[in-house]
Amino acid sequence: MTAIDVNSDLGEGYGRYRIAPDAELMPLITSANIACGAHAGDPMVMDETVALASAHQVKIGAHVGYPDLPGFGRRAMALSLRELELTTIAQLGTLRALAEHRGQKLSHANFHGALGNLSFADTDVARTLLKAVKAFDPTLKFVGLPETEAVRAADRLGIEVIPSFLADRGYSAPGRLAPRGVPGALITDTEAVRQRVAETLDTGLLTLVDGSKVALRARSVLVHSDTPRALELAHAIRAGIADAGLTIAAYG
Amino acid sequence: MTAIDVNSDLGEGYGRYRIAPDAELMPLITSANIACGAHAGDPMVMDETVALASAHQVKIGAHVGYPDLPGFGRRAMALSLRELELTTIAQLGTLRALAEHRGQKLSHANFHGALGNLSFADTDVARTLLKAVKAFDPTLKFVGLPETEAVRAADRLGIEVIPSFLADRGYSAPGRLAPRGVPGALITDTEAVRQRVAETLDTGLLTLVDGSKVALRARSVLVHSDTPRALELAHAIRAGIADAGLTIAAYG
Amino acid sequence: MTAIDVNSDLGEGYGRYRIAPDAELMPLITSANIACGAHAGDPMVMDETVALASAHQVKIGAHVGYPDLPGFGRRAMALSLRELELTTIAQLGTLRALAEHRGQKLSHANFHGALGNLSFADTDVARTLLKAVKAFDPTLKFVGLPETEAVRAADRLGIEVIPSFLADRGYSAPGRLAPRGVPGALITDTEAVRQRVAETLDTGLLTLVDGSKVALRARSVLVHSDTPRALELAHAIRAGIADAGLTIAAYG
Amino acid sequence: MTAIDVNSDLGEGYGRYRIAPDAELMPLITSANIACGAHAGDPMVMDETVALASAHQVKIGAHVGYPDLPGFGRRAMALSLRELELTTIAQLGTLRALAEHRGQKLSHANFHGALGNLSFADTDVARTLLKAVKAFDPTLKFVGLPETEAVRAADRLGIEVIPSFLADRGYSAPGRLAPRGVPGALITDTEAVRQRVAETLDTGLLTLVDGSKVALRARSVLVHSDTPRALELAHAIRAGIADAGLTIAAYG
Repeated sequence: MTAIDVNSDLGEGYGRYRIAPDAELMPLITSANIACGAHAGDPMVMDETVALASAHQVKIGAHVGYPDLPGFGRRAMALSLRELELTTIAQLGTLRALAEHRGQKLSHANFHGALGNLSFADTDVARTLLKAVKAFDPTLKFVGLPETEAVRAADRLGIEVIPSFLADRGYSAPGRLAPRGVPGALITDTEAVRQRVAETLDTGLLTLVDGSKVALRARSVLVHSDTPRALELAHAIRAGIADAGLTIAAYG
Repeated sequence: MTAIDVNSDLGEGYGRYRIAPDAELMPLITSANIACGAHAGDPMVMDETVALASAHQVKIGAHVGYPDLPGFGRRAMALSLRELELTTIAQLGTLRALAEHRGQKLSHANFHGALGNLSFADTDVARTLLKAVKAFDPTLKFVGLPETEAVRAADRLGIEVIPSFLADRGYSAPGRLAPRGVPGALITDTEAVRQRVAETLDTGLLTLVDGSKVALRARSVLVHSDTPRALELAHAIRAGIADAGLTIAAYG
Repeated sequence: MTAIDVNSDLGEGYGRYRIAPDAELMPLITSANIACGAHAGDPMVMDETVALASAHQVKIGAHVGYPDLPGFGRRAMALSLRELELTTIAQLGTLRALAEHRGQKLSHANFHGALGNLSFADTDVARTLLKAVKAFDPTLKFVGLPETEAVRAADRLGIEVIPSFLADRGYSAPGRLAPRGVPGALITDTEAVRQRVAETLDTGLLTLVDGSKVALRARSVLVHSDTPRALELAHAIRAGIADAGLTIAAYG
Repeated sequence: MTAIDVNSDLGEGYGRYRIAPDAELMPLITSANIACGAHAGDPMVMDETVALASAHQVKIGAHVGYPDLPGFGRRAMALSLRELELTTIAQLGTLRALAEHRGQKLSHANFHGALGNLSFADTDVARTLLKAVKAFDPTLKFVGLPETEAVRAADRLGIEVIPSFLADRGYSAPGRLAPRGVPGALITDTEAVRQRVAETLDTGLLTLVDGSKVALRARSVLVHSDTPRALELAHAIRAGIADAGLTIAAYG
């Protein structure tokens, strides 16, 4: 029987700032995408998040983003491919060192915010970022949205992909989230999220915002951490996985 | 016959900023203390400096400093021991990743500016910093000023110390630089630097600013990189080493 | 009849980060000390805070701090007097411009965190900071802790002082907060805060942690904004002022 | 007889970093575009630059850029119009306060790097930025490239425009610089720069890279400060102005 991973973006604080209830979310997930000091995170916050993940046997992934703390990595920035490659290496190296300092290791990587969006759509950026991940550590997996340039680049490079599914967002096409504003772009009702998770995992078909269905083979479900109802959402996703008759466990 | 290492603080640029003539200094030195993105340095600058070091077979060291770019790491800051430990790990990890990305490895570490000064005088800080270095990589050497708390901490922890000598600065006592302002604190005449290097290495005795002599067993000489006459200084130091009948080579 | 001002440190967010419930606190206070982009705050956050203050007729003050976002201005930093003077001018200028852009003006200034603490104890720093405030705008008032070097400097410079009182902190001596850890240093019971406010304002005598009493003429009471019970604290302080038979109104 | 202004981007240092020979350039120019702490500049650097400008009776302008120190404001960033408006107000306010602290006032504003380029091409951005300038201080002039959206926005808002001319750059069309790489995009020969300045000012016709001529009424010429031959360039521009029979003086 297949097990499904539950992942979430954590460690997105900085200094005295915190955004999500990381300590409460950590027991509910199986892999964490941890900010690496660029769009969020500093050594204290990264260490604290690694410690939490370690305490709950949660897999540690690097969540690489634009070096833009005031914009939280959500503003597109015109970095050169070389800058993207090197900031990725630097961010991976920072988190790996802090993880190892607690006897932990990195298991996966993925990309945050505006950089993540760009990696979904831009072939050159996707190849640059994934090549950097592979060069850094060829055993790292890529937890990402199927049918995107990022996943295609990972496939071509022989990086193992853990296909991930955003349960509380509508899709306009495979690999493409519906823009906020489009009806169905945000699924705020937790019961609807639960049913959507159950149905998608059970049937292997994802319902798009236009009502059509496309194949989706997901091995992980993302819990958005920075909404007021993050904990509720996590519980709904877990319930949906159980409804589909699947177990919850970190990717292998 | 003993060989003497010549080390210098490089990679102290940021973005479009550069401070020292790194490309011209690199062929004249045998080990580089490279800024790690805290007091100076960013992924592009670190990579560029690693590439230069690699091209000249110069040993790569991490130059760890306070996270204070506007102050260039020269302003004391009240970080907790825990913050010091974790920023050290983070900085080492960042530089190591960028070095490995070019097939290079770190060989040593040391501390910059106000953090370096604190590590000379404060036992707890010295132990915290050197313990972090050892935990990160027990094969890293410590290039530092003898008769300081930092070197004592390294000794106690079993970290190999490369005793270093500042040829263009006067000392008021073993392990203690004379404060700028004291006569003899700065030795700006390059011929005087050459003679000082030759005499100190030849006799094993360092002349203090008060004229007395103390034992100093140096295996490396520091070239200050950010003075207008850095290249001249490097040549004078190299000449002084030759005058003492010693060869120039990276620490073993 | 005397009116008592209620002040609080607000606008301490950055980018997507927020710390205190500013929108809920603003109706409960009469003057706000707004972060100016150094220890916290950015143009969006400053503007948002000015807008809130304006909507509630709350006086706008500049809360000047160390340029240390990761440390939230709570880590001592060795800035020169010249650096302190110029960062003060820069911070005041930034907030004033954003306030004027909404048709508002600055009414007071004070100092945050480690810089505030230094200004209480160090005569030169206090004079430098208060001179900068006066040079920037001689009509600005100084909301501060009586019996400190900062207030003495303001007095000497002819800056109007609004003596402020920290209702939830114990004092070891006039103008000196008891260090955290000392019994009575933190007053967490809101009923106790209410009584303390009422008694202090009614009698003009402040009870120190050793039980002795000293004269305190306060015209403002500070609501700490970044505790989980900030709103409760604000209500207790307001009730204490009413208990003393005084009205709540911004300093004149 | 018309006088021609000579302007340059100065104050582009940060902390211990400096880029251009500001002290040597200042006597050769009549107006300075000073970085405001976003893409470059900090309170110490801004103050030092204001002092230099003041010593040479050079007009002080605010050079507003993206908040991106590592990218020196040369990387496009997706800031909202609201973010652009408020960062402009904040940057203007910071520089004005530091200028006033030395008894100086701001005379003009313009936009740096990638933000400047965007303001040339994007109507909404241009209007947002120029409206912010006008709201901040309606007496500020705009020193900018004619035939751009930025100048059109200034005209519509009734902001006085000082049309500026880049003497060492080729133009592909009115208001449009030829991209680096196109033959003639960079004019590195100082004698050619001198002749170009003289001819353009004398005839009121600018020769484009394709050899055609278009009308250009320039009242200022820009000296690029961050090239190795900035001083030579400044002298060539001054000589070209003299060749055209015009005097050099700050805009009125």
